[in-house]
Amino acid sequence: MIREIREGLEGVVAASTRLSLVDGAAGRLVFAGYLAEEIAPRASFEEMAHLLWTGRLPSVAELETLTSALASRRRLPAATVLLMREAARHRTPAMDALRMAVSTLSLGRAENDQEDAWTLVAAFPAIIGGYWRLRQGLEPLDVRDDLSHAEHFLHQIFNVETSAGGVGRERARALETYLNTVSDHGFNASTFAARVIASTHSDLVSAITGAIGALKGPLHGGAPGPALEMVFEIGKPERAEAVILDKLKRGERLMGFGHRVYKVRDPRADILAAAAERFYTTEGDRELYQLALFVEKTALRLLAKERPGRPLHTNVEFYTALLLHGLGLPPELFTPTFAAGRVLGWSAHCLEQLHQGRLIRPESVYNGPTEQRFQALSQRAS
Amino acid sequence: MIREIREGLEGVVAASTRLSLVDGAAGRLVFAGYLAEEIAPRASFEEMAHLLWTGRLPSVAELETLTSALASRRRLPAATVLLMREAARHRTPAMDALRMAVSTLSLGRAENDQEDAWTLVAAFPAIIGGYWRLRQGLEPLDVRDDLSHAEHFLHQIFNVETSAGGVGRERARALETYLNTVSDHGFNASTFAARVIASTHSDLVSAITGAIGALKGPLHGGAPGPALEMVFEIGKPERAEAVILDKLKRGERLMGFGHRVYKVRDPRADILAAAAERFYTTEGDRELYQLALFVEKTALRLLAKERPGRPLHTNVEFYTALLLHGLGLPPELFTPTFAAGRVLGWSAHCLEQLHQGRLIRPESVYNGPTEQRFQALSQRAS
Repeated sequence: MIREIREGLEGVVAASTRLSLVDGAAGRLVFAGYLAEEIAPRASFEEMAHLLWTGRLPSVAELETLTSALASRRRLPAATVLLMREAARHRTPAMDALRMAVSTLSLGRAENDQEDAWTLVAAFPAIIGGYWRLRQGLEPLDVRDDLSHAEHFLHQIFNVETSAGGVGRERARALETYLNTVSDHGFNASTFAARVIASTHSDLVSAITGAIGALKGPLHGGAPGPALEMVFEIGKPERAEAVILDKLKRGERLMGFGHRVYKVRDPRADILAAAAERFYTTEGDRELYQLALFVEKTALRLLAKERPGRPLHTNVEFYTALLLHGLGLPPELFTPTFAAGRVLGWSAHCLEQLHQGRLIRPESVYNGPTEQRFQALSQRAS
Repeated sequence: MIREIREGLEGVVAASTRLSLVDGAAGRLVFAGYLAEEIAPRASFEEMAHLLWTGRLPSVAELETLTSALASRRRLPAATVLLMREAARHRTPAMDALRMAVSTLSLGRAENDQEDAWTLVAAFPAIIGGYWRLRQGLEPLDVRDDLSHAEHFLHQIFNVETSAGGVGRERARALETYLNTVSDHGFNASTFAARVIASTHSDLVSAITGAIGALKGPLHGGAPGPALEMVFEIGKPERAEAVILDKLKRGERLMGFGHRVYKVRDPRADILAAAAERFYTTEGDRELYQLALFVEKTALRLLAKERPGRPLHTNVEFYTALLLHGLGLPPELFTPTFAAGRVLGWSAHCLEQLHQGRLIRPESVYNGPTEQRFQALSQRAS
């Protein structure tokens, strides 16, 4: 019997989901009924969480309940903070520290799927911010329950008061738009890993710990990588054309352009471009922003000329890097911040898998011999 | 476009592997060229590790190298032991503690795929045994480098000297046969989870932490469950017929009989039956062993009569429970001990995936609406 191998499961539909639709051909992304550009810039992160967890936006009373469920679960177990200290002492990379810390979130708690989802989503800012501070030689900050989730994320890193309105509110809104935009994206590798683990009816802490491990891998798409590095390398507008042309002539890939799935446009890039435009009018390094836009325009023009027939568009990573940089986040925090958004989708996929999914267990074909005989050690060739 | 959904990926071949062949129709299991019954009772665990990691059995010199690579990696980071203490204080279940501890094994080490495989496999006995002792109010034992892997596993739990030959050697051999027998089994859910994570080119600690989370789930097959409970419940031979008949009349499933994949026989059951027979001639609770055999015979006879047309055979879980019970392991250690064998297969699959696999990323279909409009909170129905 010869069976077709579907390497990497490309094109295989593993399950149906009500959480997101990734329509690469049309450049369309839908979150639980709403086009990404409709919902991501408008909803608070808490509203987005209610949407993905329950399938609809919350009423006033539901939003209050969920907001306080998240706010009351921000404090980390003492053992988690101890482990983060030890990890910082060993200069452990942030994604490994995040995996270690998240795995300890079942300490002292009984398993409960929805409560686990709250606890996990609520804990990411304290872990990411606290660990970043420890790596800088600073103390983690006490958690606060009077801030929104996005405000609390910024607070845990920067110890800033963002709830007083004005400039701080713009920062939180920009982050919120980012977290919403990346909160889910079909069956990417980390989400699929979470679903495989949850498909055994394991718990959410186990599944999301596994997803963090997958997101860490360099082949996982979507995590903001070195997209801004080229902008820094170029430094001033008059160098843009020469530097980019040189890269293209040497056959280098331009980071920040093109996507495996989105062929016409990446809707996330448009959302984050608008968020960046809004943010940089009030805050941030306006000169860098102008330079980045100029580099983007130059890159797209040169790509069209040098790589004709290959439509390449600015991708989500370019504007993610620009926006997160504007918020003051260092590149080491880009992937953890991506995880702080995606954990919402991971948890929603786990709940969906637990409630209606089947055990995920594909087959393999064996490509080795079958008739070897055991030889005692002394008789083997050395 | 309507696309077929392959729920749970049943029947989908996700990749080829040289590690194991699970031929359910023929009742055949092959490990890297050797029938399970040929290799599992003969090879040491270290030889099995060399076979799965490299594709062939080691020479004398290679076995020495690998034995010392494992023996020298048994000591846990101090932070890992601290975390285990904290987990024990919270009465954390053993599989959660194992997941937390394994996730910390990257502390203070640079990533290296083969070294990570050594470190992970070598650490399981110290984690499982040390955690068990902490839960009993005992201190974890210092690791030793003068014992084989299987001897060290027993030592870390029981503080027994097993290397002096004689009775202790039989115990280590029985455990070794068990660990070899369960070391790999195609693309089960935990192995597949490890491969999905590794497919992003993440590291082995991340992938195996995820696999532990999957193995923990109650739908994950193969982990020895309550197969011996019925034997204890029956208590003496003369009650066997009545108790089993009662269960069958009430439509209950008999634990320890039948397997999703193996229809004619489970070769692992035969191997472990032989190992149990050998072990119980020299050690262990011989009365319980005789009772278990009688219960098995009675169950098979009654199943044939009460469930005609459904060939049911004793499965791997029945003999696993019997063998591990004979070794003195409490039921709480059955699944962690299964993990101590399977971590070998997980690590070998990670290496295979890293060297020749593709990113594993299936697709999903979206089954929700797409045209919702955002309503401000104040306008939503409450």
